[in-house]
Amino acid sequence: MGIVSCVSYATTGSRVCDVQLADVSEVLKSPEGFVWIGLYEPSEALLRQVQAEFGLHDLAVEDAHIAHQRPKIEEYADSLFVVLRTAQTGEQGGVEFGETHVFLGPRYVVTVRHGASLSYGEVRARCETSPEHMRQGPGFVLYAIMDFVVDHYFPIIDKLEEELEDLEERIFTGLPQGRQIAERIYHLKRQMLLLKRAVSPLMEVCNRLVRFDRTLIQPDTRLYFRDVYDHVIRINESVDNMRELLTSALETNLALVSVRQNEVMKRLAAGAAMITVPTLIAGIYGMNFEVMPELKWAFGYPFAIALMMGSCGVLYYLFRKAHWL
Amino acid sequence: MGIVSCVSYATTGSRVCDVQLADVSEVLKSPEGFVWIGLYEPSEALLRQVQAEFGLHDLAVEDAHIAHQRPKIEEYADSLFVVLRTAQTGEQGGVEFGETHVFLGPRYVVTVRHGASLSYGEVRARCETSPEHMRQGPGFVLYAIMDFVVDHYFPIIDKLEEELEDLEERIFTGLPQGRQIAERIYHLKRQMLLLKRAVSPLMEVCNRLVRFDRTLIQPDTRLYFRDVYDHVIRINESVDNMRELLTSALETNLALVSVRQNEVMKRLAAGAAMITVPTLIAGIYGMNFEVMPELKWAFGYPFAIALMMGSCGVLYYLFRKAHWL
Amino acid sequence: MGIVSCVSYATTGSRVCDVQLADVSEVLKSPEGFVWIGLYEPSEALLRQVQAEFGLHDLAVEDAHIAHQRPKIEEYADSLFVVLRTAQTGEQGGVEFGETHVFLGPRYVVTVRHGASLSYGEVRARCETSPEHMRQGPGFVLYAIMDFVVDHYFPIIDKLEEELEDLEERIFTGLPQGRQIAERIYHLKRQMLLLKRAVSPLMEVCNRLVRFDRTLIQPDTRLYFRDVYDHVIRINESVDNMRELLTSALETNLALVSVRQNEVMKRLAAGAAMITVPTLIAGIYGMNFEVMPELKWAFGYPFAIALMMGSCGVLYYLFRKAHWL
Amino acid sequence: MGIVSCVSYATTGSRVCDVQLADVSEVLKSPEGFVWIGLYEPSEALLRQVQAEFGLHDLAVEDAHIAHQRPKIEEYADSLFVVLRTAQTGEQGGVEFGETHVFLGPRYVVTVRHGASLSYGEVRARCETSPEHMRQGPGFVLYAIMDFVVDHYFPIIDKLEEELEDLEERIFTGLPQGRQIAERIYHLKRQMLLLKRAVSPLMEVCNRLVRFDRTLIQPDTRLYFRDVYDHVIRINESVDNMRELLTSALETNLALVSVRQNEVMKRLAAGAAMITVPTLIAGIYGMNFEVMPELKWAFGYPFAIALMMGSCGVLYYLFRKAHWL
Amino acid sequence: MGIVSCVSYATTGSRVCDVQLADVSEVLKSPEGFVWIGLYEPSEALLRQVQAEFGLHDLAVEDAHIAHQRPKIEEYADSLFVVLRTAQTGEQGGVEFGETHVFLGPRYVVTVRHGASLSYGEVRARCETSPEHMRQGPGFVLYAIMDFVVDHYFPIIDKLEEELEDLEERIFTGLPQGRQIAERIYHLKRQMLLLKRAVSPLMEVCNRLVRFDRTLIQPDTRLYFRDVYDHVIRINESVDNMRELLTSALETNLALVSVRQNEVMKRLAAGAAMITVPTLIAGIYGMNFEVMPELKWAFGYPFAIALMMGSCGVLYYLFRKAHWL
Repeated sequence: MGIVSCVSYATTGSRVCDVQLADVSEVLKSPEGFVWIGLYEPSEALLRQVQAEFGLHDLAVEDAHIAHQRPKIEEYADSLFVVLRTAQTGEQGGVEFGETHVFLGPRYVVTVRHGASLSYGEVRARCETSPEHMRQGPGFVLYAIMDFVVDHYFPIIDKLEEELEDLEERIFTGLPQGRQIAERIYHLKRQMLLLKRAVSPLMEVCNRLVRFDRTLIQPDTRLYFRDVYDHVIRINESVDNMRELLTSALETNLALVSVRQNEVMKRLAAGAAMITVPTLIAGIYGMNFEVMPELKWAFGYPFAIALMMGSCGVLYYLFRKAHWL
Repeated sequence: MGIVSCVSYATTGSRVCDVQLADVSEVLKSPEGFVWIGLYEPSEALLRQVQAEFGLHDLAVEDAHIAHQRPKIEEYADSLFVVLRTAQTGEQGGVEFGETHVFLGPRYVVTVRHGASLSYGEVRARCETSPEHMRQGPGFVLYAIMDFVVDHYFPIIDKLEEELEDLEERIFTGLPQGRQIAERIYHLKRQMLLLKRAVSPLMEVCNRLVRFDRTLIQPDTRLYFRDVYDHVIRINESVDNMRELLTSALETNLALVSVRQNEVMKRLAAGAAMITVPTLIAGIYGMNFEVMPELKWAFGYPFAIALMMGSCGVLYYLFRKAHWL
Repeated sequence: MGIVSCVSYATTGSRVCDVQLADVSEVLKSPEGFVWIGLYEPSEALLRQVQAEFGLHDLAVEDAHIAHQRPKIEEYADSLFVVLRTAQTGEQGGVEFGETHVFLGPRYVVTVRHGASLSYGEVRARCETSPEHMRQGPGFVLYAIMDFVVDHYFPIIDKLEEELEDLEERIFTGLPQGRQIAERIYHLKRQMLLLKRAVSPLMEVCNRLVRFDRTLIQPDTRLYFRDVYDHVIRINESVDNMRELLTSALETNLALVSVRQNEVMKRLAAGAAMITVPTLIAGIYGMNFEVMPELKWAFGYPFAIALMMGSCGVLYYLFRKAHWL
Repeated sequence: MGIVSCVSYATTGSRVCDVQLADVSEVLKSPEGFVWIGLYEPSEALLRQVQAEFGLHDLAVEDAHIAHQRPKIEEYADSLFVVLRTAQTGEQGGVEFGETHVFLGPRYVVTVRHGASLSYGEVRARCETSPEHMRQGPGFVLYAIMDFVVDHYFPIIDKLEEELEDLEERIFTGLPQGRQIAERIYHLKRQMLLLKRAVSPLMEVCNRLVRFDRTLIQPDTRLYFRDVYDHVIRINESVDNMRELLTSALETNLALVSVRQNEVMKRLAAGAAMITVPTLIAGIYGMNFEVMPELKWAFGYPFAIALMMGSCGVLYYLFRKAHWL
Repeated sequence: MGIVSCVSYATTGSRVCDVQLADVSEVLKSPEGFVWIGLYEPSEALLRQVQAEFGLHDLAVEDAHIAHQRPKIEEYADSLFVVLRTAQTGEQGGVEFGETHVFLGPRYVVTVRHGASLSYGEVRARCETSPEHMRQGPGFVLYAIMDFVVDHYFPIIDKLEEELEDLEERIFTGLPQGRQIAERIYHLKRQMLLLKRAVSPLMEVCNRLVRFDRTLIQPDTRLYFRDVYDHVIRINESVDNMRELLTSALETNLALVSVRQNEVMKRLAAGAAMITVPTLIAGIYGMNFEVMPELKWAFGYPFAIALMMGSCGVLYYLFRKAHWL
């Protein structure tokens, strides 16, 4: 909660030192370098303090305080405000979404994390090992964060693709799980929609960063955003693919349920015939006519039983041949 | 009905005083400040009077008199005409729509409410507490109204999402309510279409206000419209999401109805077999052959009953194993 | 048939006098004013005469002679050719379509009506009462006609919406009319397609007229076309709405047919059980075993009947509880 | 096969004379006029010869040799290459597609026909009767050919619309042809896709010709291409319409099959009840109780038969009332 | 694995000699000509060496090392990076995808193949036979490779179209394979999605190459890319076509399954009637009334049998007439 870390970097890209939030304006008086502040679900007071330090716009700060924004990029006079949705596999195996808001200025970058999301400690560590990249300034930090966020979508996509394949197998092996299959397809579709909502606005965000022509982001850094853009497109395509397959899967499942119904009905008909025909024969020899020669025969009874079994056999053979059994 | 309020504001953004409609032109002779008039379902005469005061265009006034417009923004020589659709939860729990038309000029803003809609008294009160914003002129009043209107869509969206979740639960628990489920899905879809129609044109309205480059709306105010735009997009996305989920829900429900039909048919077949097989046995021992050894046995009758029950048991076991029962 | 009316108007917008087609070129020698000619299904000879008077383009005249054009606007050197599709409720309650072609030049407007369509006498009368508008020239006449044509779509839309509501009610009350419902949905869909085809190209037509930047249409008149455009969008939206609802209605109907099938099958199963179980009991007491104690009892017969009725009662209770009956 | 005709035209648009392919370059040495060559499935050698005469691009000539191109327009340095798909009703009533490739230069037009397609002799004859049009040069010849090709789609569209109407009637009269209906809908859909593929790229082709601003096509001729464009849009709209109706028809048919299934099942249930209830009564009087008063009655037998018939009658009345029969 | 070939070409387009990778920079010191290097699944070390030789961008090299990119084109300062997906029919008859990455500079072209893909030896051989084309430089090599890759999609499309036709036939002949049909449709759809994903981004790639206005690709070469573009559009159209047909096929199959279910149910009903009616007759003559004249008749028994058979015959005739059998 609150401030996670607050570090200043030199123009050479190398880490200078940890600073107190209150000292930031002091630090920025030096003509070069920038500050990277990491916050996690900050209180309003803290956010207001940060706002005062960097002169952030009211509307952006309000957005940063309340989660449940959609991914977007907003330009203010001399700064950028970027909202990202992060995703990770939850403890029960479902997808959990978090949010990261980034304020980007010429001399600072502020990240605000909300909800389930990995710490950016790893990103910071990786950045600090390559000062030749950090030299590109706050814009590169934004890239590093976006790259980290986007790359964490790939394992989620892989897991959902596996689930879909498992589902396909169940649909076609036709185990008696029609009910669960329809339910699972529906829930996968729901998750796809959430993913789609998290990922597809990122395309617009990346696209604008690639084309962004002000000094906040250096030309070299733009090539990196193009790389993120490419990843986002791939994730987006996978999601679209799966959505389409799920729609087909639902329809295919419906078709197969109908096919099975047909099969059940044919068996029902065949079974009914094989019981009712002998019943009819029994009924005939149960009639009370005075003159019924068979009734007098010594072997009348076995004959009747044989007749019943014979008719059953013939019916079985016929239904079998017609693939009703 | 008629005039709800008519107040003049100074360039500093602070409230000056209530004015009579007839005195408005007098008030506007002073070189600064603006007038904000609120009307509720005005008579044609009143509208014509307002038109005369501010020189509004015939077509816009005609539109403002008749409700059932779609949300839009129209530019006239030196004024704007904006139509918004407002929504609120009605007394029976359904969504009720109203309309608000706004005339915006360099020195005036006129709001015309129609149908079920909240008073803008609250908006006015809030605006008057922050003269630093009101200083931006009539454009800020338009923002305040749009923000108020759009924010009232969120609780409606939440309520509909809850309804959808409740519906999903019913679909999958499979209570015998197939009929009501289909009907409720349909009615939710219908409401989504109405919401969509009310909200989606707002995107175009906001977009144009964000890009609007004339003096009527100050550059500072445009950032605020971007915020409204962002809210509209989120509402719109939620509506699209729900529509897609409802389509899937309808299909899933159809699939589940078929699955259940299959189950009923299997039980029907199993039940039929378990009654007709004993009937066949009874039929056999009802035959009138002279030579039927079992008929003479002392325990023939219990034997037959045992045979019937035994066959029933075997069938029960077999159907159970095949998951038909 | 042929010429319906041919009137010349002064630049002040007021009616001058009726003229003969042959005198039109004479009339146009005066440096001001314009001529408005109304034709109804003209012969080719008449069209050729009109063509010669105003120097219309071959291709436009050919189009005007043959109906079954789609709504469009075509620019020629110094004139416009506009095709509109008109709609009205026919005598049997269906929608009947007609066509109106308009040639528009700097000094003339020629309307050519085809098929079922109202006379533009009413439009002409209304125009002549407001010379201040007619002063805007032939462009305003085009507006007046388009406004008239578009406004006549609203009652049709209302009627179709009523039909749809009636259909929805029938779907959910579930009267045994599955067959007719599907048929009516299909026919409504067909009508929607025809309406869509008639209305949606009008958006493009209006849009181009709003943006039209030559002298043929005065800047003031463009605002009027924007009003027509707005009406067309509303009609178009209603049509799209209904199409989507009809698609949902068809699917919902299908789902409800399946639900009802399920109910029928459950009742069928319950009914079968309630007949076949007593039959089995009767079969048992129809067996011919020598030792069957019940057969000797004085109350054996009533006991058997009671047994049958009892089993029926128990089954009825069980099926009722399971909501199968 | 090979050269069908090769004629030179003067700048006045009138036919000069037939020329040999080898003499074409000779003819083109005169400063004016153009040559129109018609080929039908030419050999590669012949195409190479034509290529040499006019300096056509390798890629265009390769395309022209192999059929199965999609309609397109391609610009080369000083020439155009246009591919059209032609359609006509085959002998068995199906739609047969052919292809026409057109090379267009400032002084020549070469048409190459492939597969089932009408000769352009008729087009040539019509062109030659109006030298005032032919004066516009090779561009007009291209128009004449495209107009001819596009106009031949209309009767095909009409025929398919008739087929669709016939199909609709069959769906709703409900003759027992469910199988054939589904098959015919599918095959119509397939044909629609082929038509769509042939026609929709033509829109882009025409559109580019209308906007084409080089000397190859004269401004006057562009108006003619706009006319072709308009026809293509109409054909395209009809195809889209029919596709949508076919989708609805398939769904409606599915709904009606289900409705009929419901009806069959209700009758099945009613019929079963009307046979099994009398069977139960017969079973009761077949029981062997010693004390069954009815068995002793003189009119017991007729009484039992009456009971059976009575129960049948009551059931018939009840099912009839419930619309199950 | 590793380097497949590395050859230098003169500006005249003719092959000079094989070179070692390490000597490439030496070779490029001569002011003219270019080098074409072919790699197959290179190790990272090898890729880094190539990167060093030509100064390739980090991001492009990273992409080239990891397969599973989507087709794309990326511009770097003075080079292009192109990703293609290749397809070929696998040994089990399925479609196998590979990838080819191309680095294109003013003096070099590097191809990197991954997974199942044909060697470009054939392309190289064909290029070397036409130095007049190779003179266009590395851009022409890119064309030759893309043309080769795209042309290999055609036989795959043909094979899938055959499969679809086979499937259609099976759907309409109605062999009892409902289950397999649904499964095959689903798997074809899945393959279509993969194909779509491989082909559709190629349109954007080609489109950008056609419009590419820098020296890397000569104006003459652009016409060749337009040709590839045209092929890609055709493949893409075929895939879209098949997807739409498969959707229809799935729905049609569902409709036919329902139609067949109807038929089965009618036969079931007819069969049941033909067994239960004789059973009823037998039941009647099995009643124990003392006075039943028929029982005393000498021909009572044959009469009853005749009655049974007669009722069967009548029912058979009736059901036949109603097309239930």
